[in-house]
Amino acid sequence: MRTHIVYAHPHNGSLNAALRDEAVQTLEALDHTVTVSDLYAMNFKAVADFDDFGPTESETFIDAAAEAWEKDALAPDIKAEQEKLLAADNVILQFPLWWFTVPAIMKGWMDRVFANGFGYGTSRAWKRYGDGVLAGKRAMIVVTTGAADAHLSDRGVNGDINDLLFPIQHGVLFYTGMAILPPVVITGAGWQSEYADMVKHLRERLETLAETEPIAYRRQTDDYDEHKRLLPGREAPGTTGFALHIAQ
Amino acid sequence: MRTHIVYAHPHNGSLNAALRDEAVQTLEALDHTVTVSDLYAMNFKAVADFDDFGPTESETFIDAAAEAWEKDALAPDIKAEQEKLLAADNVILQFPLWWFTVPAIMKGWMDRVFANGFGYGTSRAWKRYGDGVLAGKRAMIVVTTGAADAHLSDRGVNGDINDLLFPIQHGVLFYTGMAILPPVVITGAGWQSEYADMVKHLRERLETLAETEPIAYRRQTDDYDEHKRLLPGREAPGTTGFALHIAQ
Repeated sequence: MRTHIVYAHPHNGSLNAALRDEAVQTLEALDHTVTVSDLYAMNFKAVADFDDFGPTESETFIDAAAEAWEKDALAPDIKAEQEKLLAADNVILQFPLWWFTVPAIMKGWMDRVFANGFGYGTSRAWKRYGDGVLAGKRAMIVVTTGAADAHLSDRGVNGDINDLLFPIQHGVLFYTGMAILPPVVITGAGWQSEYADMVKHLRERLETLAETEPIAYRRQTDDYDEHKRLLPGREAPGTTGFALHIAQ
Repeated sequence: MRTHIVYAHPHNGSLNAALRDEAVQTLEALDHTVTVSDLYAMNFKAVADFDDFGPTESETFIDAAAEAWEKDALAPDIKAEQEKLLAADNVILQFPLWWFTVPAIMKGWMDRVFANGFGYGTSRAWKRYGDGVLAGKRAMIVVTTGAADAHLSDRGVNGDINDLLFPIQHGVLFYTGMAILPPVVITGAGWQSEYADMVKHLRERLETLAETEPIAYRRQTDDYDEHKRLLPGREAPGTTGFALHIAQ
């Protein structure tokens, strides 16, 4: 098994760095081949711009991206990340929750690596949501936050952490075809959680990576009409919001 | 009235750039003093790191941020953005929807400008969700997307655009005290929408900036218990997800 970890934290003495090292050790003990993209350590370029595409005569950003994809002219750091994803069986995104989503450097990794042609396309027939370039792989988020568990719970003022992660888990990772495992969420980081408990939980999840049941996000080809709206009656009565897109 | 526009698009010949110019003209015709942070044009640093804080002896990133705030040692570009926000009556965030949220450069603007001490604090008594450093101001998102309207509708496969924008509108803008106006959402950009219609819609929204009813996000001080969970019975029966945090 090959597992690729995409990791973002600005401090190499952080809780996140320690958990990353624990993850690598645990996976290697399970005979995984582990690769890590440590975005801060790599000084990964966060901002998608025309420099990613080489010379272009396209008049829009999205067309320039498509042209670069077709000409195999994407920046080398983007291509390297795409290769790591293609080579992996499992993809783990690890980050601290900043403003209820990933730090900018990891958002930039998504913007740049999941470029037009690789991560998405403009064709009506583009395979997405359960099928796509990364189909057959498994993905899992490992996220830390200083917020208390209750604040991120179903009625918590920040919103339910599962809803907050939906745009990443469903909108990026499932979009490109991966099966999404329930996230490892470490709340109260730095004050409410014990390090030994976090490590134990993380290890258990890594040891069961292959057999954990993925979140039952609905495949676009199965449950949506021609306008990509959920077909009537597919959901449990009263279901609304992002929960519509998970089979019960 | 002072209105500050935070804008992110990599191409100055884009639809977004044209709409930004229309917005500036419309607001100036209404006698607003308009400032624009054009993040790409400014080459705004997207990645929050220790360089933002000056010399520190703090052992964690969050403590280093707090120390920099207390010592007034934040990077000049961060301080300049904070000043623009403090000076404004209205704040507009304009961006193309990339992977269902803001481009990385705008996420970096949030990560860096809404730093510990300014945008949030670690104290239990920190004022947030309806109160905070930006209370009394109004905020509005202007977002473009190539996705079709139906794909972002209540049952659309991408998720409802209002839920997708919740972590930004509620989790960042309302968190810091601003009143959030319903977003200007331009779907089908580049193929489904007519430019004249977009401009008309945008102008109408800008002309009614002062009197438009904000989204009724619940104030933390009003509707939540000591664990910051929504008090029982506050919502309409059957309400779940992010909708819990909007008064009916």
